[in-house]
Amino acid sequence: MAVAVTAEIAKKAAHLAWTDFPDDLVERTKQCLLDWFAVTVSGAQDELTDILIREAMEDGAKGSASLVGRSEKTLPSAAALINGAASHALDYDDVNFAMGGHPTVTVVPALLALGEQIKASGRLFVESFIAGYETSGRVGRLVAPSHYLKGFHVTGTVGSFSATAAAGRMLGLTDVQLAVAFGIAATQAAGLKSNFGTMCKPLHAGTASEHGLRAARLAAKGFTARGDSLECDQGFASSQSDHLEIESALAEPPSGWHLRNNLFKYHASCYLTHSPIECGKEIRLKSNFPPERVKKITLKIESGADKVCNIPHPATGLEAKFSLRQTLAMALAGVDTANVDSYNEAITQEPRIKALRDKVAIEFQDGWTKSLAEVSIQLDDGTTLEASHDSGIPWADVGKQRRALETKFDSLVTPVLGAAGARRLHDAIERIDSLSDVGDLARASTKG
Amino acid sequence: MAVAVTAEIAKKAAHLAWTDFPDDLVERTKQCLLDWFAVTVSGAQDELTDILIREAMEDGAKGSASLVGRSEKTLPSAAALINGAASHALDYDDVNFAMGGHPTVTVVPALLALGEQIKASGRLFVESFIAGYETSGRVGRLVAPSHYLKGFHVTGTVGSFSATAAAGRMLGLTDVQLAVAFGIAATQAAGLKSNFGTMCKPLHAGTASEHGLRAARLAAKGFTARGDSLECDQGFASSQSDHLEIESALAEPPSGWHLRNNLFKYHASCYLTHSPIECGKEIRLKSNFPPERVKKITLKIESGADKVCNIPHPATGLEAKFSLRQTLAMALAGVDTANVDSYNEAITQEPRIKALRDKVAIEFQDGWTKSLAEVSIQLDDGTTLEASHDSGIPWADVGKQRRALETKFDSLVTPVLGAAGARRLHDAIERIDSLSDVGDLARASTKG
Repeated sequence: MAVAVTAEIAKKAAHLAWTDFPDDLVERTKQCLLDWFAVTVSGAQDELTDILIREAMEDGAKGSASLVGRSEKTLPSAAALINGAASHALDYDDVNFAMGGHPTVTVVPALLALGEQIKASGRLFVESFIAGYETSGRVGRLVAPSHYLKGFHVTGTVGSFSATAAAGRMLGLTDVQLAVAFGIAATQAAGLKSNFGTMCKPLHAGTASEHGLRAARLAAKGFTARGDSLECDQGFASSQSDHLEIESALAEPPSGWHLRNNLFKYHASCYLTHSPIECGKEIRLKSNFPPERVKKITLKIESGADKVCNIPHPATGLEAKFSLRQTLAMALAGVDTANVDSYNEAITQEPRIKALRDKVAIEFQDGWTKSLAEVSIQLDDGTTLEASHDSGIPWADVGKQRRALETKFDSLVTPVLGAAGARRLHDAIERIDSLSDVGDLARASTKG
Repeated sequence: MAVAVTAEIAKKAAHLAWTDFPDDLVERTKQCLLDWFAVTVSGAQDELTDILIREAMEDGAKGSASLVGRSEKTLPSAAALINGAASHALDYDDVNFAMGGHPTVTVVPALLALGEQIKASGRLFVESFIAGYETSGRVGRLVAPSHYLKGFHVTGTVGSFSATAAAGRMLGLTDVQLAVAFGIAATQAAGLKSNFGTMCKPLHAGTASEHGLRAARLAAKGFTARGDSLECDQGFASSQSDHLEIESALAEPPSGWHLRNNLFKYHASCYLTHSPIECGKEIRLKSNFPPERVKKITLKIESGADKVCNIPHPATGLEAKFSLRQTLAMALAGVDTANVDSYNEAITQEPRIKALRDKVAIEFQDGWTKSLAEVSIQLDDGTTLEASHDSGIPWADVGKQRRALETKFDSLVTPVLGAAGARRLHDAIERIDSLSDVGDLARASTKG
């Protein structure tokens, strides 16, 4: 292998500094934080978070690391795990297509736990976040698409490297140390796509964050690993991907930064259901027909979605989020797909929704853009209604995006932290670049 | 998939009880413990163990779980990680060919940590150990040989399932709960073979043990995962193996128990170097020629060894253990290959050894038994000396095996715990089946 891609990616992450950032990157980081804290405060109320906290307490892992949306305190490693899992619990967190997974949920938990412990500055936090985020895009591109197609959950696997880059940057690792830390991360990276629809999917975000923090801290202490783990024979790519897309991994994206291609979710379901949902909403807005008049619904979407979110007969709220037919039926029936509470057992058995769901025929398309969907609906009088949408295009208007995220933040955070608590957390996020201790941010996110 | 292999393996492990065991199985368990504590007490003095303990302490993971060969106390999860890594630090622990890796190093650490915490009885410890051990053979067979050939370190991956089975059995999980625990283990299982020769190899044993303990405890608390993770599409085997050898996985081995095929190491190097070493020792015993008279050394061994332990020019003690040429040269030169201190930087540069090493030509053989080696040596007067050995055949004489293990135990434990400490630990192992609290065993293994 001619190009030392692990070393190159480590160099880019280790040397990234505040002065490298165009103005919009700090605003984009704040938007990622607004979104991350929103979904995490809410996800922290989920049963899986309760179980993980009980497990940590049974293990004796009491400490002074903050848990978002909770009152318990734990150890930094456990906080990375629990906050990571909580932030992916709703499957409502952000997405990056170059990574092929969820970028922020593995990076922020490691940084928040480490930053609170070492009293890192807010600027260092932002630098480290961007180092982690950009790494997710690079490593994701290196092994795409075969890594994901083979059955690996990119958020759990590639996300370990981005968490490592972030924690390593915060600890001030040299690029050589960071390449070794990547070797420690590579040897722990895991997560099976077949566990989608179970509590293990969010767990992957937590373990990736926990492992990234561990990898960076072990490398700082002289723990050894190969420095070429991404590209070496029997390394990460060799064992878990058919390709090694080095050029693509090392190239900057057309917009200059992977962070500029971040995609936020405005529906609380799998990202690949978003375009079908947008089509359903658009058709519903165009013509408010009664559901019983629908004869046939055709959904066209790229074939890869079949293995990601095609549970034909969902029976739980979690399964509903991974069901193209269910989510499209919900959108057509006017259910609020942005509301996390809309995805529950009852709605999977709701006769009106079920009737619509059973009329959806999916025609998988090879070679399509994976974020594209086309929906056509035939009514009993022969009318055909059509819509198409591509949820993979980042919003051009960053200000509009912020307003949408503020709404999402309020709706998820206020019920848990109250109006004053939500405001306090919001203010801490806004002041991130001037905070002398990011522990202030971590503590502002906890519950009473 | 017709056979629910995850569920079947879970059933076998969950229902295993004391009354199922023939008499020799308890003696064999004690021998595994003698060997495990010996290598762990010594491995606990290794730099990698120091680093892992510093990391745990920096994380704040103080607790009451014992660390073998050390005086610090930590949390159960950290103890599973640290004792697991320490026990594989010397690469001197036992081996099972059905598993294709090191069986005991992932099972005992999880059981010791959990058993000490919940004050489990010694009988429950033995039942849980055997449940874990047999699982390692079953899951190993399921994915062999392609899983290992693809680059996965079986001890880290398959070893997660055996640690889960052991911890699950100790917690009294039902077979259905254990199948779910296997799903949680599957989604965390990791370990890259390319990290052989670095501290990550021993780390894999620790993370597998830590993850197994976590998987069992989370399943006991109702955490969800697929119950068919081994065989399902995009599951463990589907993503990381070319085959699914269900019949082989569910069949009992010819001797009735995988534990009866346990292989102990009497040389402190990679198991695949053992047959070449035995050949070297035999040739040396036959004819005590001076090294400078050697013209050519030919080693024949199965091709798979090339990717496991064929570091041609080792420069560190760790690399020496994974070098067929180096270890054969050491055996031919009369170096004590059983002594862990024999593997060091100096010996890799020793002119007499280097001269021999450079004369070794390896002829890799396809289709051979992987534990078989043939060595032939040509001397300058035309004499040819030959030997062959197969280290894959378990010793028929269990009593002789015990005596060899007692010697190994004394030589590794006495320098660390002193003669009285070694005797105390030895006695606790011997009394395992009558201990009312295995915490007594854990505490007997600590230092001062």
